[in-house]
Amino acid sequence: MGTPFDVPLEELRTRGSAKWATYPADVLPAFVAEMDVRLPEAVVRAVADAMAAGDTGYEVGNGYAEAFAGFAAERYGWDVPVAAARQVPDVMQGIVEVVRVLTAQGDGVVINPPVYPPFRPFLQHAGRRVVDAPLGADGRLDLDALDRAFADATVYLLCHPHNPTGTLHSRAELAAVGELAARHGVRVVADEIHAPLVVGDAPFVPTTTVIPDAVALHSASKGFHLAGLKAAVAVPGPAAADLARIPEIVGHGVSHLGSVAHQAAFRTGGPWLDEVLAVLRGNVATVATTLAERLPSARWRAPEATYFAWLDLRDTPAVRASGADPSRLLLDEGRLAAFRGTDFGTGGEGHVRLNLACSPATLDQLLGRLVTTLA
Amino acid sequence: MGTPFDVPLEELRTRGSAKWATYPADVLPAFVAEMDVRLPEAVVRAVADAMAAGDTGYEVGNGYAEAFAGFAAERYGWDVPVAAARQVPDVMQGIVEVVRVLTAQGDGVVINPPVYPPFRPFLQHAGRRVVDAPLGADGRLDLDALDRAFADATVYLLCHPHNPTGTLHSRAELAAVGELAARHGVRVVADEIHAPLVVGDAPFVPTTTVIPDAVALHSASKGFHLAGLKAAVAVPGPAAADLARIPEIVGHGVSHLGSVAHQAAFRTGGPWLDEVLAVLRGNVATVATTLAERLPSARWRAPEATYFAWLDLRDTPAVRASGADPSRLLLDEGRLAAFRGTDFGTGGEGHVRLNLACSPATLDQLLGRLVTTLA
Ligand SMILES: Cc1ncc(COP(=O)(O)O)c(C=O)c1O
Ligand SMILES: Cc1ncc(COP(=O)(O)O)c(C=O)c1O
Repeated sequence: MGTPFDVPLEELRTRGSAKWATYPADVLPAFVAEMDVRLPEAVVRAVADAMAAGDTGYEVGNGYAEAFAGFAAERYGWDVPVAAARQVPDVMQGIVEVVRVLTAQGDGVVINPPVYPPFRPFLQHAGRRVVDAPLGADGRLDLDALDRAFADATVYLLCHPHNPTGTLHSRAELAAVGELAARHGVRVVADEIHAPLVVGDAPFVPTTTVIPDAVALHSASKGFHLAGLKAAVAVPGPAAADLARIPEIVGHGVSHLGSVAHQAAFRTGGPWLDEVLAVLRGNVATVATTLAERLPSARWRAPEATYFAWLDLRDTPAVRASGADPSRLLLDEGRLAAFRGTDFGTGGEGHVRLNLACSPATLDQLLGRLVTTLA
Repeated sequence: MGTPFDVPLEELRTRGSAKWATYPADVLPAFVAEMDVRLPEAVVRAVADAMAAGDTGYEVGNGYAEAFAGFAAERYGWDVPVAAARQVPDVMQGIVEVVRVLTAQGDGVVINPPVYPPFRPFLQHAGRRVVDAPLGADGRLDLDALDRAFADATVYLLCHPHNPTGTLHSRAELAAVGELAARHGVRVVADEIHAPLVVGDAPFVPTTTVIPDAVALHSASKGFHLAGLKAAVAVPGPAAADLARIPEIVGHGVSHLGSVAHQAAFRTGGPWLDEVLAVLRGNVATVATTLAERLPSARWRAPEATYFAWLDLRDTPAVRASGADPSRLLLDEGRLAAFRGTDFGTGGEGHVRLNLACSPATLDQLLGRLVTTLA
């Protein structure tokens, strides 16, 4: 009756990746988006087999899109157009290449801060202008802000589910976005990397099933803890014919072993993912109870998807008393590494993003440090 | 007394990578740059261990540059400036990011056709103008052509060792290039991915040891058959301070598992590499004897580095008789997949690039098909 999260802390501390190798051993890391899990057996085996066979050359064929299509049909009831999909090196590179096809240099691209920090510098590095349409006070899409921003933009980069708030956009919201985008001649690019990680009651609604000329990016990297083996796929909606214009060389950056790992995850990882989601749901519930009981001044909404808790800590006693950024207090005094809210842009002041993808035991430690530091 | 090339053909045909999964089973593939080898044990183990431990998050730290520096000190007597080096997702992305830092949109970048085909579209996709300075009739750098091209350029993308000719630029040639580049205010970016694969008598001379403001790109992907696990490093010369201007987000594309694999290769793969080089040297000798005896109308120079044979087949009987492109004849009639020379640009007419990174037994089959088709 173990779960994928049954990995001792001492073992986690031997990992060489960013979550566990950035801070000294007395710091509990809850910042970067890695999960404290063991991988699905079949994924470990697929990679080991390829390595043992020297199957480490260049990727070829459409296996990634096929594997994802099977997963998407089963989990989202979504009929993915395999032949029109394009494998890309990772989600961020996929976003950049799709945006390059849909825009010209200097064109505006709308994002919704607070949002995944790399969106802004990646778009800027691609020579595009970032136009902010902040989320509403309720943490959801603000249609008026979008309406204003769309007047000055060519593409809307939607984060669905939204990182860091864990918001899942509803079918009605997506329909309203689609209508607004069509009115302004804005094309929608949806980063759906967190789609496998639904932890609430609402379902994930694929953007292209509501907005036919949207393009969506998917990957097994978040849902299956495979960020270190990069791979992703761009999926066009039924009315989006643009992906054929992405140059062939973009496929050069695709990692064959990344593809092998992600394909194994999409094809066989469903039961493992369900175990992970059960733990994450429990963790979300634990955060809710703990904050309500021990730190009621922390404001938050439970995520509908992702393994993040986006906490507004401005009214906590320690932040009020010190005026300090809560991520600073948590690191210096609590030895807890959380992601600083201001890195996510407007609306992130006094917030932190906590990573809940850990064992319930680690979560207890983590919340203990949080409460002790801020209460 | 086996070698890393002791992999049965039937097993190679089960690989999912481009070399073995592109053509039907009756075609012998000698096109794309993959080797028919088993990987070094320590590389297989390092990846398997990371997978088993779930060490599949984001790359952090400077381990790649450190591992490469050890390898470079031992094999090239080169003192790599570890702290100034920048890890990049792969060599082509590294080239693009370095070129972006050194040039403006529309600037000219010089390449030497016939040369690795992706150079041109990658530079163009980055909004740079490609300026050709073809290799000389002797297959080496043509300083007069470079002088003319440099007048219209900001950067020179040097391929060292040169793909497809296998030319290793000498210290004297590099010094002449450096002088010319300095005179024109042109910066040198050297793609040194094939450096581990020296198969002749001349040594590999690192470009930055001769041209201090050059930047070099290195990777374990060719020398250790790890193209499917992408990773690379940009190494600045002592007078090149520009790498700090590469934006931080470029590191986002780095694969942690690629890094783990490449680091293991650089740190422990020396003896394995020597076994590989011994086979490759034998294969080069076999090509020389076979062509001299059975297809003397084929013109070539034995490579000094790389595992390629760049063959001028224009005077072979079958090409003369048919007027067809030799790669077409070889595929259609010989069931041998070679890389078409014209894909490498000017100077590639009537040529093919053959991949010699196979077992001697496979090489015999391959040369048999070549000779039978063209003689
Ligand atoms: C919204 C979002 N997009 C993209 C990424 C990164 O994806 P990739 O590594 O495939 O570029 C992340 C990683 O956490 C993310 O949260
Ligand atoms: C000269 C040269 N540069 C770059 C590459 C590709 O390197 P990467 O896959 O790291 O971009 C190759 C692959 O064969 C090559 O021959």
